[in-house]
Amino acid sequence: MFNFIEPVEKLIEQFRRLPGVGYKSAVRMAFAVVDMDKEKAESFATAILDAKEKITVCSICKNISDSDICPICASESRNKSVICVVEDVKDILAIEKAQEFRGVYHVLGGLISPTDGVGPEKLNIKELLARINEEVKEIIVATTPSVEGEATALYLSRLIKPLGVSVSRLAYGIPAGAELEYADEMTITRALEGRLTL
Amino acid sequence: MFNFIEPVEKLIEQFRRLPGVGYKSAVRMAFAVVDMDKEKAESFATAILDAKEKITVCSICKNISDSDICPICASESRNKSVICVVEDVKDILAIEKAQEFRGVYHVLGGLISPTDGVGPEKLNIKELLARINEEVKEIIVATTPSVEGEATALYLSRLIKPLGVSVSRLAYGIPAGAELEYADEMTITRALEGRLTL
Repeated sequence: MFNFIEPVEKLIEQFRRLPGVGYKSAVRMAFAVVDMDKEKAESFATAILDAKEKITVCSICKNISDSDICPICASESRNKSVICVVEDVKDILAIEKAQEFRGVYHVLGGLISPTDGVGPEKLNIKELLARINEEVKEIIVATTPSVEGEATALYLSRLIKPLGVSVSRLAYGIPAGAELEYADEMTITRALEGRLTL
Repeated sequence: MFNFIEPVEKLIEQFRRLPGVGYKSAVRMAFAVVDMDKEKAESFATAILDAKEKITVCSICKNISDSDICPICASESRNKSVICVVEDVKDILAIEKAQEFRGVYHVLGGLISPTDGVGPEKLNIKELLARINEEVKEIIVATTPSVEGEATALYLSRLIKPLGVSVSRLAYGIPAGAELEYADEMTITRALEGRLTL
């Protein structure tokens, strides 16, 4: 196998660690950096370091933030009576892009998974319970429809319902624009179970 | 359009500058950096800075190098009597991967292109001429078969042949493994011109 000079090899190795980057892409990226002028390379390196140094976790909802309280929790226009519970920060982005939900979020930081040794105490569940006050009317559990996602949703609903707060989950079914013939059995089962009267 | 917090936006912007990286990939890469532990992010940033600081240009062949003379020029096992002239550093990599050529290289740093204002004086041509001594027997001009590549090859052969050095170029034709029906007219023309007697 052909070896590049050491600084290039190291850079290729770094790019390969990124999601979706294979060897050939990493080589092209490394050479793009070699071809950059010094200032551009420096601002790239600074952006990486800043992502670690300037990003913190929102003290309310555990979303990533560049201040103590994230822009969503700090916003006056968001409805604080509805909290959407998600597994991960990336799930917030997916929901925000739809521009449909105007409530606030709570990031669990994982799902309950006894086989992986993740019990409820490892997730941000007590922080969620601490947020439930008279203002909160509904908790939407937006975990994925996997075994762990379902178990987590069930656990949360058992914990929260007795507090007099409504608990809901996202609808499961055929995704918009998808062909029925390509839908898997589980999705079709869910879509049948959740059928609506016309 | 949904906006991320500023450090994430800046990182996405940096990743988007890399070749072949679209918006969605850049977002995934930026979040991979956010999820990295601090040491990994630091070694990534260092690798980028090192690529600019530690990489220099070989004083003989103009290849990138981490020392004054690149590993190829410094190697005892390379045949110094054959110099392969390429447009760009990346062309060296392509040839090296084939593990067929055992000579040395010379990087022009571009091609002659009057329309882009690139005359021979802007390329590493005088450096190439300075390398031609009694030891050098052959110059292989490995420029691409474009108008500029051909013009550069012709210019070099007119300059070098009178010095008593043989000048050759790479064979043009159908690429290995390619289907004839998908080859473009120019490639077929070249393949016919360069036909070999069986």
